[in-house]
Amino acid sequence: MAKKTGILGGDARMRLLSQMLAQDGYEVCTWELPGGVNPTALCDAVKAEVIVLPAPLSKDGMLNGTELPLGELWRLLRPQQQIYAGAVREEERRSAEQWGLTLTDLFSREELTVRNAIPTAEGAIETAMHQLPVTLHGTRCLVVGFGRIGKLLAHDLQAIGAQVTVSARKLSDLAWIDAFGYAGLHTNRLAGKLGGFRVIFNTVPHQVFDESLLREVAPDCLLIELASASGFDRKAVESLRLSYIKAGGLPGKVAPETAALAMKKTLCKLVEGQE
Amino acid sequence: MAKKTGILGGDARMRLLSQMLAQDGYEVCTWELPGGVNPTALCDAVKAEVIVLPAPLSKDGMLNGTELPLGELWRLLRPQQQIYAGAVREEERRSAEQWGLTLTDLFSREELTVRNAIPTAEGAIETAMHQLPVTLHGTRCLVVGFGRIGKLLAHDLQAIGAQVTVSARKLSDLAWIDAFGYAGLHTNRLAGKLGGFRVIFNTVPHQVFDESLLREVAPDCLLIELASASGFDRKAVESLRLSYIKAGGLPGKVAPETAALAMKKTLCKLVEGQE
Amino acid sequence: MAKKTGILGGDARMRLLSQMLAQDGYEVCTWELPGGVNPTALCDAVKAEVIVLPAPLSKDGMLNGTELPLGELWRLLRPQQQIYAGAVREEERRSAEQWGLTLTDLFSREELTVRNAIPTAEGAIETAMHQLPVTLHGTRCLVVGFGRIGKLLAHDLQAIGAQVTVSARKLSDLAWIDAFGYAGLHTNRLAGKLGGFRVIFNTVPHQVFDESLLREVAPDCLLIELASASGFDRKAVESLRLSYIKAGGLPGKVAPETAALAMKKTLCKLVEGQE
Amino acid sequence: MAKKTGILGGDARMRLLSQMLAQDGYEVCTWELPGGVNPTALCDAVKAEVIVLPAPLSKDGMLNGTELPLGELWRLLRPQQQIYAGAVREEERRSAEQWGLTLTDLFSREELTVRNAIPTAEGAIETAMHQLPVTLHGTRCLVVGFGRIGKLLAHDLQAIGAQVTVSARKLSDLAWIDAFGYAGLHTNRLAGKLGGFRVIFNTVPHQVFDESLLREVAPDCLLIELASASGFDRKAVESLRLSYIKAGGLPGKVAPETAALAMKKTLCKLVEGQE
Repeated sequence: MAKKTGILGGDARMRLLSQMLAQDGYEVCTWELPGGVNPTALCDAVKAEVIVLPAPLSKDGMLNGTELPLGELWRLLRPQQQIYAGAVREEERRSAEQWGLTLTDLFSREELTVRNAIPTAEGAIETAMHQLPVTLHGTRCLVVGFGRIGKLLAHDLQAIGAQVTVSARKLSDLAWIDAFGYAGLHTNRLAGKLGGFRVIFNTVPHQVFDESLLREVAPDCLLIELASASGFDRKAVESLRLSYIKAGGLPGKVAPETAALAMKKTLCKLVEGQE
Repeated sequence: MAKKTGILGGDARMRLLSQMLAQDGYEVCTWELPGGVNPTALCDAVKAEVIVLPAPLSKDGMLNGTELPLGELWRLLRPQQQIYAGAVREEERRSAEQWGLTLTDLFSREELTVRNAIPTAEGAIETAMHQLPVTLHGTRCLVVGFGRIGKLLAHDLQAIGAQVTVSARKLSDLAWIDAFGYAGLHTNRLAGKLGGFRVIFNTVPHQVFDESLLREVAPDCLLIELASASGFDRKAVESLRLSYIKAGGLPGKVAPETAALAMKKTLCKLVEGQE
Repeated sequence: MAKKTGILGGDARMRLLSQMLAQDGYEVCTWELPGGVNPTALCDAVKAEVIVLPAPLSKDGMLNGTELPLGELWRLLRPQQQIYAGAVREEERRSAEQWGLTLTDLFSREELTVRNAIPTAEGAIETAMHQLPVTLHGTRCLVVGFGRIGKLLAHDLQAIGAQVTVSARKLSDLAWIDAFGYAGLHTNRLAGKLGGFRVIFNTVPHQVFDESLLREVAPDCLLIELASASGFDRKAVESLRLSYIKAGGLPGKVAPETAALAMKKTLCKLVEGQE
Repeated sequence: MAKKTGILGGDARMRLLSQMLAQDGYEVCTWELPGGVNPTALCDAVKAEVIVLPAPLSKDGMLNGTELPLGELWRLLRPQQQIYAGAVREEERRSAEQWGLTLTDLFSREELTVRNAIPTAEGAIETAMHQLPVTLHGTRCLVVGFGRIGKLLAHDLQAIGAQVTVSARKLSDLAWIDAFGYAGLHTNRLAGKLGGFRVIFNTVPHQVFDESLLREVAPDCLLIELASASGFDRKAVESLRLSYIKAGGLPGKVAPETAALAMKKTLCKLVEGQE
């Protein structure tokens, strides 16, 4: 708790993170973080025991939100420091290793991805509520995939009165889907079952809906993409003139404070070596 | 079911209503309803057995959405017709009575007000999700009042993981609040209890929050007004620079199709004399 | 709070009540209450400012749980005392009035009947779980009536995954039933709809199910009676050899501690004049 | 579907299974199964393409519910048959293999263990309702472990209004516990946190509660054991005179029909080669 923490670069979420850590009693200094707690010169900030870098770590080779090349940064840090970042690419990790530095990617921690699934699910619901001329209450929704986001999204949709169908591939997932009271479909056998849905939320990061499946979808159905890679054939979506929304990066957009708090919880566990 | 129905004037909700009635097999004609089913001359439309007028009925003395003075309309209708409208004012009802006409106000039917509470609650949730930098999940919310909207709103908020407190005045309501697992407060004894809320939804149509209560509210708390008359002292809200949103007419705005369907259900019950 | 309270006669629930009041700091004395707090002679107990009598008040004209005729008791009490009891009959109230005494029936307080609906609903669920060879999860249940017990029972059944249908008579109740996501039936139009249910919970205190309706019920359906007067034609139930359980007085049986706590809350409000 | 199925030995659950299979159109014969469909001589039954044996497979070396030694049975079966059983022990599997037979253990299929978690959770709730003098509504419950049973039990308890705490060891499980709105505890750090619980459900199959933890438990707390191996130090439970219930084999006891249906679903998938 008493360890000195330097937060370098970043956006609104990192600013909120710096404030939360300071409120918790951490000695925090920031560099190049607009509105960040206790702004410091780079030469001082890099001396902290704990270094927190942005998420994602870099854009165009510069530390995110700054003009500092990553290579320059590595030169200033030391192997005995604890260094954290979010969404670290493989080549970035290796370039740090060449300087003897170990980067811990917060987003590779499962409990953080679970915590981020909450604002993602809520953001998906807000998006659907905003776009649809009907209430989600009473409306037939299909959630494709039963991973972290699918589980929470199905739960929340059912909780507010939607008629929820979830598709999955594993028999054990289909048993869970039944146990939680959703209707179940096999993701590989969606053909002939799609006509009645008013919203389809995709959480599967590869194409599930080809043109022939999309032809089954009702014209007033809304497609919401929650996966990083598209589950829908985008060309067919356009040629069929279906309503489509790509809802990416929801945690930082719809609930930056919740997202910062989730990062803080994981960061503190790691810094304090609780797991 | 087979009765001829004339829909005169109105907005998008009435247009959706005309389409739904036509799909159900009613013989529908409309006058001065953009996009309405089977447009007809006024002299024909007024001859239908069932006459459906807009909600609200009029603006500036004209039939809503038209240039026709209400007095002119009454002259064209006959006492044996079934005449429906929404949100009818007392003086409008009396002016119709002078022509021997009986206006039935759909919105005075309790089951329709219950049905309209669903899109209102969902619209309130969408508004809060959109405005807050946190998820509703895990967030402390206060719902003031435990009528139709308060009941559904508290249910939905809890269902998606919010920490819900509801205030009411009657002991029996407070017992229900406890039975449904919400924290309870007495609406007359809110002083000293308001500091921890991040959102306050008001459903009570008279002032509950005077300046002294509003001074207790946290600076980052969002006030959402769902009642027709304000529950918050507006001047104090402004001088204290609190975040305030007046969320009125939600059913027609956030879910016109659901709202039209609710009207249709009540209308059909009445036309077919089922209650 | 500091008022001296005498508890006269009663059962396990009254004993728990005497203990709870004592723990809350009330000065309690009891007479003829096995295991009750601070046992006292009758002549002392009747002098307390607050007098709490059993629920129900009497059996065979004697104070419940004792050999003391009610008439004798009235003679010992005084008009300025606060006198409470549960389930008071009209003639008992009048006999007390002849001595200038005012009996307050705790069970006529709506918030207490709401609180008692919780153990009733839970007891009904326990009964069904115990009797059925299937889980309630996934099982089709019919709740007849949408009063206090019907509302909570439907909520709890749905919450644990049952397929819930609720019948009511008022259109506004049917709108609520829809709003909460249950299937709805009109209580007067059950004919032809009963074949698929595995459990029927009745909460309506007069006969709903005559022989012709009961003939529709599946042979493996369980009938659970929660109303004081039977909703099922008992003769037909027997001749058709249907499974039938009369589940009366559930709060005291399945959860005496919860029932005593509910009485205490109402009693304290009344004694302290909070409403 | 058309494959001839022989069901040999077993209990009420197997009898229900034989009836369900027959209703689904399977050609079923049974041997030594009281009340089973289409009773047949052993020499005929063993010729079916699909052979279904009891769960558990044997008692004292005999096929469960019969006097037939397992070794005798193996001699009568052939390698090309599909042979299913439940809860097969390792030595039983090997003895069958020596005859060239492959036993498929239905209970090793994850989707069946998920389906069995439903009656287990419901049976645990029924047990707690039956034993406690309070409603589960409003009562503080601890669920130890967040596997299949822990997940469903926590869900159902919260759904009926209990105050639910769940303990787990993995940070990601604790994140899920938070996401679903339960209070969370680390299973290794329960000391000092146990005083307020009224029920503790254990689902972890090794000792979690030693004497020192059990000393913290309130005297009126109910301990319910749902794991195969005890999570509570049984000697300490007795010397401390705590209330303890071993609730084993719940699916077959509280909901044999649901349990049979779950077996049938998995059996049919396997017979028809759908996965």
